Amino acid sequence: MRRGRGGPSEPGIELPDPPEVSFASDNAAGVAPQVMAALASANTPAALAYGDDSWTRDLIAAFRRLFDADVEVLACWGGTGANVVGLASMLEPWQAVICTDQAHIVTDEGGSPTRFIGSMLLAEPTADGKLDPAAITRRSKWIGSVHHPQPAVVSISQTTEFGTVYTSDEIGVLADAAHAAGMLVHLDGARIANAVAATGDDLITMVRNTGVDVMTFGATKNGAMYGEVVVYLRADLAAAGRFHHKQAAQLPSKMRFVPAQMLALLEDDLWVANAAHANAMARLLADAVDRIEGITVVGTPEANAVFVTAPDDLLDQLARWSFFWRMGDAGLARWMTSFATTPDDVAAFVEGVRLLAGRQL
Amino acid sequence: MRRGRGGPSEPGIELPDPPEVSFASDNAAGVAPQVMAALASANTPAALAYGDDSWTRDLIAAFRRLFDADVEVLACWGGTGANVVGLASMLEPWQAVICTDQAHIVTDEGGSPTRFIGSMLLAEPTADGKLDPAAITRRSKWIGSVHHPQPAVVSISQTTEFGTVYTSDEIGVLADAAHAAGMLVHLDGARIANAVAATGDDLITMVRNTGVDVMTFGATKNGAMYGEVVVYLRADLAAAGRFHHKQAAQLPSKMRFVPAQMLALLEDDLWVANAAHANAMARLLADAVDRIEGITVVGTPEANAVFVTAPDDLLDQLARWSFFWRMGDAGLARWMTSFATTPDDVAAFVEGVRLLAGRQL
Amino acid sequence: MRRGRGGPSEPGIELPDPPEVSFASDNAAGVAPQVMAALASANTPAALAYGDDSWTRDLIAAFRRLFDADVEVLACWGGTGANVVGLASMLEPWQAVICTDQAHIVTDEGGSPTRFIGSMLLAEPTADGKLDPAAITRRSKWIGSVHHPQPAVVSISQTTEFGTVYTSDEIGVLADAAHAAGMLVHLDGARIANAVAATGDDLITMVRNTGVDVMTFGATKNGAMYGEVVVYLRADLAAAGRFHHKQAAQLPSKMRFVPAQMLALLEDDLWVANAAHANAMARLLADAVDRIEGITVVGTPEANAVFVTAPDDLLDQLARWSFFWRMGDAGLARWMTSFATTPDDVAAFVEGVRLLAGRQL
Amino acid sequence: MRRGRGGPSEPGIELPDPPEVSFASDNAAGVAPQVMAALASANTPAALAYGDDSWTRDLIAAFRRLFDADVEVLACWGGTGANVVGLASMLEPWQAVICTDQAHIVTDEGGSPTRFIGSMLLAEPTADGKLDPAAITRRSKWIGSVHHPQPAVVSISQTTEFGTVYTSDEIGVLADAAHAAGMLVHLDGARIANAVAATGDDLITMVRNTGVDVMTFGATKNGAMYGEVVVYLRADLAAAGRFHHKQAAQLPSKMRFVPAQMLALLEDDLWVANAAHANAMARLLADAVDRIEGITVVGTPEANAVFVTAPDDLLDQLARWSFFWRMGDAGLARWMTSFATTPDDVAAFVEGVRLLAGRQL
Repeated sequence: MRRGRGGPSEPGIELPDPPEVSFASDNAAGVAPQVMAALASANTPAALAYGDDSWTRDLIAAFRRLFDADVEVLACWGGTGANVVGLASMLEPWQAVICTDQAHIVTDEGGSPTRFIGSMLLAEPTADGKLDPAAITRRSKWIGSVHHPQPAVVSISQTTEFGTVYTSDEIGVLADAAHAAGMLVHLDGARIANAVAATGDDLITMVRNTGVDVMTFGATKNGAMYGEVVVYLRADLAAAGRFHHKQAAQLPSKMRFVPAQMLALLEDDLWVANAAHANAMARLLADAVDRIEGITVVGTPEANAVFVTAPDDLLDQLARWSFFWRMGDAGLARWMTSFATTPDDVAAFVEGVRLLAGRQL
Repeated sequence: MRRGRGGPSEPGIELPDPPEVSFASDNAAGVAPQVMAALASANTPAALAYGDDSWTRDLIAAFRRLFDADVEVLACWGGTGANVVGLASMLEPWQAVICTDQAHIVTDEGGSPTRFIGSMLLAEPTADGKLDPAAITRRSKWIGSVHHPQPAVVSISQTTEFGTVYTSDEIGVLADAAHAAGMLVHLDGARIANAVAATGDDLITMVRNTGVDVMTFGATKNGAMYGEVVVYLRADLAAAGRFHHKQAAQLPSKMRFVPAQMLALLEDDLWVANAAHANAMARLLADAVDRIEGITVVGTPEANAVFVTAPDDLLDQLARWSFFWRMGDAGLARWMTSFATTPDDVAAFVEGVRLLAGRQL
Repeated sequence: MRRGRGGPSEPGIELPDPPEVSFASDNAAGVAPQVMAALASANTPAALAYGDDSWTRDLIAAFRRLFDADVEVLACWGGTGANVVGLASMLEPWQAVICTDQAHIVTDEGGSPTRFIGSMLLAEPTADGKLDPAAITRRSKWIGSVHHPQPAVVSISQTTEFGTVYTSDEIGVLADAAHAAGMLVHLDGARIANAVAATGDDLITMVRNTGVDVMTFGATKNGAMYGEVVVYLRADLAAAGRFHHKQAAQLPSKMRFVPAQMLALLEDDLWVANAAHANAMARLLADAVDRIEGITVVGTPEANAVFVTAPDDLLDQLARWSFFWRMGDAGLARWMTSFATTPDDVAAFVEGVRLLAGRQL
Repeated sequence: MRRGRGGPSEPGIELPDPPEVSFASDNAAGVAPQVMAALASANTPAALAYGDDSWTRDLIAAFRRLFDADVEVLACWGGTGANVVGLASMLEPWQAVICTDQAHIVTDEGGSPTRFIGSMLLAEPTADGKLDPAAITRRSKWIGSVHHPQPAVVSISQTTEFGTVYTSDEIGVLADAAHAAGMLVHLDGARIANAVAATGDDLITMVRNTGVDVMTFGATKNGAMYGEVVVYLRADLAAAGRFHHKQAAQLPSKMRFVPAQMLALLEDDLWVANAAHANAMARLLADAVDRIEGITVVGTPEANAVFVTAPDDLLDQLARWSFFWRMGDAGLARWMTSFATTPDDVAAFVEGVRLLAGRQL
């Protein structure tokens, strides 16, 4: 991605071209060729709007096979919208959500779920992006008293915002605690494919059998142009969900183009292959930069995010050359790979890191 | 559109194939070929998300030329979302909207604007889809008293939900009344292209000079796959608008694909040509069915909607053959044309009407 | 009420003192002496807050006797709050309310129910303040389609905002239509006492047996200092209602003082006696002013409101002397009586009307 | 307060009567005699509703004297409502609030502010109930990015929920940090009187000169029957505040009775004297129980709350005898005193503690 920010010159040093695809986020990539072909193909014949079409019917059937269960699905425009629709379907306006204080719904959706639903997010501290089951027990003591927020949903992200991956057992423990307290479990699966690729567990093992009630199935960060799907394992919640879906302005008019993309990703497990590639590129990147003096990789990448610490001025120079986001704490950066990241992109980025880090010494 | 509902057989009558493209709505069509090509082209090179890309910058420039003014624009996923974002940018939560009781925001957005913004919609009766300026004066008496809803925005649709088209003068009269009462003017332009094509007035004449403050510029019903743009003539309102945009889950992640579509529609005024074609097909249809006994065309189509009255059982049979929506009153139906409607589609539909109406006699 | 606006002098005419208690509204009166005594009495002994007290328990028992049913009750601060709590308990955020366009929740609560609940109010035209059952049938066609607002509650006011009184039969017809369409019935009983006094029907006949599901039982306009009670005939709705009650900031801290007032009003049917007196004063006023040339009483007062038409300048002069509210239409005014209105007040007001009307001729 | 829970018998021990006034909360007390007299007095003459009365005008004048500034005031029903109105007046729906995770608005208002306003509460950990100014700086980095919640208000409680008291200097430091970041300062003064009594600083020093923009002036916990006042130091915010006030259902109908109570409390600084008495009773209680083995007083009471740690089963037995609230952590209890707590109440309570603690040894 040579456009936008970045560029080849830093005073006193000759930098190579930045990588074609940015490491800023997995949504800086374009669209997988199979998805683009599916969009073109779905243009004919004409079809009625709002889901009264064969692609939508095929999508429902495909997800039921994927989960081996009578799930309901609602296709949404994007990830924030899908989280809003899913959570709204699980909550009364007077109920609240337990999640980590690093959850995407807390830090990166601009307050959208709270604005639309009216619910408080009870944000728990986390060291690694995972929710501590003890938080569920502690917060559940508030249930029944009108004075306190009423936690009714536990929301977790898979993979987490720290790039870690819950084991299926860990999800099961959280779901058991939630259900024991009368709460439901929501899973923000913007990067669920990366978790499936990383663990080898399928959706039946990781999502259905653990007890997740509603999830966002992400596609945009994994090769789609747009579109995320709310999957209702608790199919009864979809009845009201349909109205939240419309009210949250998440019902696509020319609907067929969303399921057309999803079906392309599901065909021959392209979604898992895309994610496995992204994960492999993250490990390639981590291994390479870990050998560079002045850069420390935080943990071992479990999926497609590499977290590094480095001197702030080095990160500043690097981000000017090839943009990426800084995390809250000083000296911490996140580099993400995607289905579209090539070994050449990794090599180009590593070369830039090496040159700029070398100058620091 | 041979898929979905409808089919060739009605008991005791041999019906032809229904038309390829449904007359149910202009969103039953697919995507214009120029738009599809633009989507493919925008896939490379990679680009940062959320509008930090050259397509978005080009779109802003294009709209500033179109209005010859320093407008701000926010690209949204769909029409309901764009109306929500535009209206939210114009309203405090304690303020209300004046519109007709047939407005899309009242009848066809599932209550989305009210849910998100918290505002009452003060719905005024209308005979032809247009708002009576007297309603503004009458409602404005409530301003300042905490007991009454506080009207602060006048929202009109161009073209209207009844297929009629405001003249620029009519919009100017409404805007003057609104501004005189301290209110702002919102225009739902889901079909603004059809109004421009119908009147020959450009956006400078019809929107900017009349005093519209914020509008939804529609594209989906005119050849786009998805995407509508909120245009802020009152550019200062976009500062808060950006946050409503995010909160309403209307900020596309891989943003570039929305402006890429818009730019394709704006090139060589394709948007006007598409709409002019749709309007011409509506007149062709109206002229043909008006000669069929048992069918009465209501008024003369001003844009791309044909309203007809007919016996309910005839409409039922027709809709089973080629689906369309019934309006509130018994015996009233709406048939819509689009950029993709062909003379052959019109002929096929008229033939079906003729056969089924003939059997009624 | 000699304070506030008004005064004895109009140019060229010698006006008497305005009446002690204003005819502006029944909330311009003070507190009934029995209620004031109950407040003083409830000050000892100390009691835990938020309803964990004997007065609250006694109130529940009293209302169960009044309705001869296991109703649940939630005591609120005021009428708008009680309507908000009751309606919120009956609605999902994506559902809507059918009511008249003159309903207090539409015109006089500043948009509070819509702001808090997110629900559209589908306001139907009315000639006499009563809702036409046909509106329920017509709106019910929208049920099930995500595109349209979803009516789920029918809300009526007893007495109506036009001072008319539904017969119990009329309420039953509306409730049957609502229930047949799967909707619930809400009754805004800010002036329920005046209806009971006017018809002689008790709450069992008028409310329980007709099928009302949730009601606001008004007290403030009938002698209380503050406090209105949401009565849940559908007791199951109170479980969530308790949380709406807290969230709507309608849970009084030193709760006992609200039920203490209610119990004083219920004792020996003081609430009915107070209302019967108010109704009688309205008839006295109507009979007297109807004989004055230039003033026309609209209809016959059914409860405690007198509507009159008169030249605008006469109404202006009268309101300067003793304040009252003008209704929407030119030349229309509303005069209200209360438990505290005395025959002397009526006589004083009539004398002012007579003098000012006489000068008009 | 012998009613309600509690009672003289615990197996194997002879307990005295519990104290007349509960130590559960300062809202378990009744109404100060001066306030009760003011309510009776305000019953005549009649007065127009909604604040068009002389008591309301006198209240505005009194608060302007108190702050020596042209403040605006809106009288509300209760503390949650006053916080909602104040905060809503300071926030756009897309903005957020910084506060501690122990703030009343976070833990004890049932989510009311978030439900009504739509704003996220960014809850910061606190050791002593006070907000760390560093949190303001850290959160302010999010300002301007649509992806992140937008902090716009810093809300603090005086006294805090831990019974501690901010010095005026501490408030000034927080307000300076907030204003430097473009945020406003809200003060929840449900117990502001206790802080004034504890520090000797008046409202000019503690609130106006430190830079607080909007505050809740509490009265209910200090001798009123009901009513709290939103005071706008930033008087311009009251213009929109009036509409939030109505929409939050916090506009009392027979308004005069709220200012009548406030005026009684302000007369001869009764509000400060009441609070000083409550504070003195807390110290008396703390000193006495601190000498009892098995009970540890946490810190030194700064106002009218005594926090103690003790074995859970001892606290359970005590609470059965004379009810009080347990705090989140095991073994922690809060005992509160009020204007109505007598030395005899303290002695009775201490005697119960002594007897039950003695049996533990």
